[in-house]
Amino acid sequence: MSELKLDRVTPSASGGEGQFPLNQWYVAGFSSELTDKPIARTLLGQPVVLFRTAEGQAAALEDRCCHRSLPLSFGSVEVCGIRCGYHGLLYAPNGQCIEIPGQEKIPSRARVKSYTMSEKQHLLWIWMSDSSGTAPTHNAPDYPHHDNPEYSFGTGVFHYDAPYQLVHDNLLDLSHVGYVHAKTIGGNARQHMNSKLEVTSEGNVVRAIRMMPGTPPPPTYKAAWPFAASCDRWQECEFDVTHLRIFTGAMEPGSGQIDAPDRGGFHMRGFHGVTPETAETTHYFWSIATNHHPDMPDTIDITVQQVKDTFEEDRVIIEAQFANMKKFGSAASWTDIHVDAGTNRARRIVEKLVQQPDSR
Amino acid sequence: MSELKLDRVTPSASGGEGQFPLNQWYVAGFSSELTDKPIARTLLGQPVVLFRTAEGQAAALEDRCCHRSLPLSFGSVEVCGIRCGYHGLLYAPNGQCIEIPGQEKIPSRARVKSYTMSEKQHLLWIWMSDSSGTAPTHNAPDYPHHDNPEYSFGTGVFHYDAPYQLVHDNLLDLSHVGYVHAKTIGGNARQHMNSKLEVTSEGNVVRAIRMMPGTPPPPTYKAAWPFAASCDRWQECEFDVTHLRIFTGAMEPGSGQIDAPDRGGFHMRGFHGVTPETAETTHYFWSIATNHHPDMPDTIDITVQQVKDTFEEDRVIIEAQFANMKKFGSAASWTDIHVDAGTNRARRIVEKLVQQPDSR
Amino acid sequence: MSELKLDRVTPSASGGEGQFPLNQWYVAGFSSELTDKPIARTLLGQPVVLFRTAEGQAAALEDRCCHRSLPLSFGSVEVCGIRCGYHGLLYAPNGQCIEIPGQEKIPSRARVKSYTMSEKQHLLWIWMSDSSGTAPTHNAPDYPHHDNPEYSFGTGVFHYDAPYQLVHDNLLDLSHVGYVHAKTIGGNARQHMNSKLEVTSEGNVVRAIRMMPGTPPPPTYKAAWPFAASCDRWQECEFDVTHLRIFTGAMEPGSGQIDAPDRGGFHMRGFHGVTPETAETTHYFWSIATNHHPDMPDTIDITVQQVKDTFEEDRVIIEAQFANMKKFGSAASWTDIHVDAGTNRARRIVEKLVQQPDSR
Repeated sequence: MSELKLDRVTPSASGGEGQFPLNQWYVAGFSSELTDKPIARTLLGQPVVLFRTAEGQAAALEDRCCHRSLPLSFGSVEVCGIRCGYHGLLYAPNGQCIEIPGQEKIPSRARVKSYTMSEKQHLLWIWMSDSSGTAPTHNAPDYPHHDNPEYSFGTGVFHYDAPYQLVHDNLLDLSHVGYVHAKTIGGNARQHMNSKLEVTSEGNVVRAIRMMPGTPPPPTYKAAWPFAASCDRWQECEFDVTHLRIFTGAMEPGSGQIDAPDRGGFHMRGFHGVTPETAETTHYFWSIATNHHPDMPDTIDITVQQVKDTFEEDRVIIEAQFANMKKFGSAASWTDIHVDAGTNRARRIVEKLVQQPDSR
Repeated sequence: MSELKLDRVTPSASGGEGQFPLNQWYVAGFSSELTDKPIARTLLGQPVVLFRTAEGQAAALEDRCCHRSLPLSFGSVEVCGIRCGYHGLLYAPNGQCIEIPGQEKIPSRARVKSYTMSEKQHLLWIWMSDSSGTAPTHNAPDYPHHDNPEYSFGTGVFHYDAPYQLVHDNLLDLSHVGYVHAKTIGGNARQHMNSKLEVTSEGNVVRAIRMMPGTPPPPTYKAAWPFAASCDRWQECEFDVTHLRIFTGAMEPGSGQIDAPDRGGFHMRGFHGVTPETAETTHYFWSIATNHHPDMPDTIDITVQQVKDTFEEDRVIIEAQFANMKKFGSAASWTDIHVDAGTNRARRIVEKLVQQPDSR
Repeated sequence: MSELKLDRVTPSASGGEGQFPLNQWYVAGFSSELTDKPIARTLLGQPVVLFRTAEGQAAALEDRCCHRSLPLSFGSVEVCGIRCGYHGLLYAPNGQCIEIPGQEKIPSRARVKSYTMSEKQHLLWIWMSDSSGTAPTHNAPDYPHHDNPEYSFGTGVFHYDAPYQLVHDNLLDLSHVGYVHAKTIGGNARQHMNSKLEVTSEGNVVRAIRMMPGTPPPPTYKAAWPFAASCDRWQECEFDVTHLRIFTGAMEPGSGQIDAPDRGGFHMRGFHGVTPETAETTHYFWSIATNHHPDMPDTIDITVQQVKDTFEEDRVIIEAQFANMKKFGSAASWTDIHVDAGTNRARRIVEKLVQQPDSR
């Protein structure tokens, strides 16, 4: 893409010098993960303990007792907070130490950083900023498809030894599925590469849409839905800084309904929370939802399993890509090709937000 | 403890910048470890080979052949020294090379650093300084309980991925046993935290004593000795720079003899050699001795096994603590609480000795 | 060796500051390794993909797609080149990208570094320089013994966590075989150390020859050839910057033919390609060829197996040596002894070539 300045989109091997868009809602996990045990999870370079109080409230604190630095995630959850497993200090969800066993006075400095959380539609969202207990400037994103009775969904939590922007690149540009995922959701490499990729953006959102009418259904589609030899396929990717929605699917060929809002056929609705762990590692929280076919009771199970295999293939590629970037260091520049329009636009948005956290 | 300056007791993540009290006797191992094979062990950042000559003398040399740097611990022990396993150079216990096969003249510079050792009461003590073959300024510490016929003892050698001062902290302040060791020697967390901790010091020795009359015996005590529902317990910890003695025990309640020198009951005498391997790793050489009860033939076996499990619990906590200190780096200060009086005093002694090695 | 200045032969712990003799033919592998899959191999710090085109030509490229840095070794070999496994860019053996699927124009900068290769006598040689596609200034070395019908040979590919010059030292000075290889090709340590080592050199070649008449045959010799209690042995080592030839063997004692060109007996012809992977790691490509004895059908199989065991013993020693050099750092100087004459001469040649790549 000749209009791009390459130096702005070529990441350093360090994965962006440890900087992330702050003052954003990131996915911290799935609701189903948070039971009676605390979870240790480093998010944007900050070690965090996630726990659920006896009242059911999801809470997040700096994962370090202010006394002798043991991770609070080694402690135990009590009715009104979390108790350190070394000498018993008890912390409330707002980060204040509220009990030091054997000591009457609790110094006000005995506190740790707290994080605002929002739990909705089976997702745990966390507001990440540099300060403690910051009030979010907007509501956590909506993802209604987890609550849509016409869909079933499955989830997965992956860990990548690669920086988050390489995962963005992979998800926003699906032209790779022809090469990387021939066994599941891909194949037909040239049909992908030759199809027009329509890229639009609005604020911090980028959309990349590819229509592939009259093409063979990939293996996963055939396994999950009663397709014949040809179908009309669509790939609709939407990037929104901390997460992506990827809606793909296919219908009987020739209906002319491929881009109709109420088109029929087989629908895969993918949610992708891409949360930096560190500058060089990433949490990947994904779900896949499918609609139902009366004759195919296993649609969702087959799809979840094959999508999991697919994302494993991506992980191998992305980790190899990053390991290679580190090997070559500054000697490795990137030459753009036609499919990079969407991913480069997303990189510019991230770059802007890293420098001006509150721009939209 | 309000009298403490926090910056003096908060360790850096590097575990003290690679500095240790020098000109001290450290534990290098147990006598039983040193048979006919050399042992490689890094002590205070210095790679050392320990071996026992045919005459039975324990010896310690720099673990590096002066010819081509192979560790001498890859060689073989001979009557009068240790021979390198690469080209056959032979070294005497004083570090001088005394044979170069095929070469008549041995250059005087063909030598390695030697260390003075003292073997007594089943312990191998090594005098650690910056120079070679330094003469110790005092005798190695005494630990007569290994030779006391009224006691039996068992030993263990652990390795910690944590700096030595975190192990000191753990051993000199037993208030954690209520939280960390509920299954063995602990439990009753609040009784520990609410009992008075009496801290005294003399020279480089710190003592921390806690009496707990009329409390339930912990699981290990009940398994090893015929205690009823309540007992009078004591915890007497003594820190002496390179090692600690921890004498704990319990007797029938209400005798008024809890602090009498010849009190009866169940006695656990713990020896704890805490020898830095590097600034960030530690060797932990421990023994536990118990007296005998006519009706309890398994007292020592039960105690050794449960103590081993207990120290494993400590290792998990201490390594997690240190890993977390490294994660947070300089952002992680420590807030002191009431139980830190003894450990902070020990840290000040170590700090003084690092700066003035021969102060007492 | 009094004429040597130690600071010139004592390697730094970093293994030579990442510098290697350039403009040399290095061994990249054995012909038998290169089938229809690409091979990823880092050579002299440069990640390289080796592949064989459908026409059978061995080719080597920088192992990185110029688009998004995926290693080309994750791709697939096609008739006229190698195709990236992420978005399908196709590269010719000269490094030029010749297809970008879905895009008409291929920018001229869409290319990667290529390397000149020479395949002969079962060996893959690669010309290593700093620039792309450099024309070699001389032919790849000859090793006719792989094609000699009077010999059979076996091969091995080892990886060392140690810099290449420590492997040179080990191979050019066989005095260690008495200590390290007593179970296979060694033993008789003192007879090795007391035998005269004749060292000569010519250009960048160093020869180190040791004759050991009337000595017991080592275990491997006895297993592979019908030797009696004594034999006349020879060890002829030749260093040539990137590889060594080691011709050893033995014959019936007392013939007076030990250094005759057409001497009989048991011949082991070792080829040793020592190719730096990085400053601290090394590829070791070896072959061993033996002549045939009418009554000993298993000579080559026995020899290959025992030589493999032998080189494993070397690997353990060399890796321990290097790990120790790193532990001691600059504190570890080397004291030379009589056997170091050849290895030190080879080190001076390497030092000269690192500074003046084209000197001979």
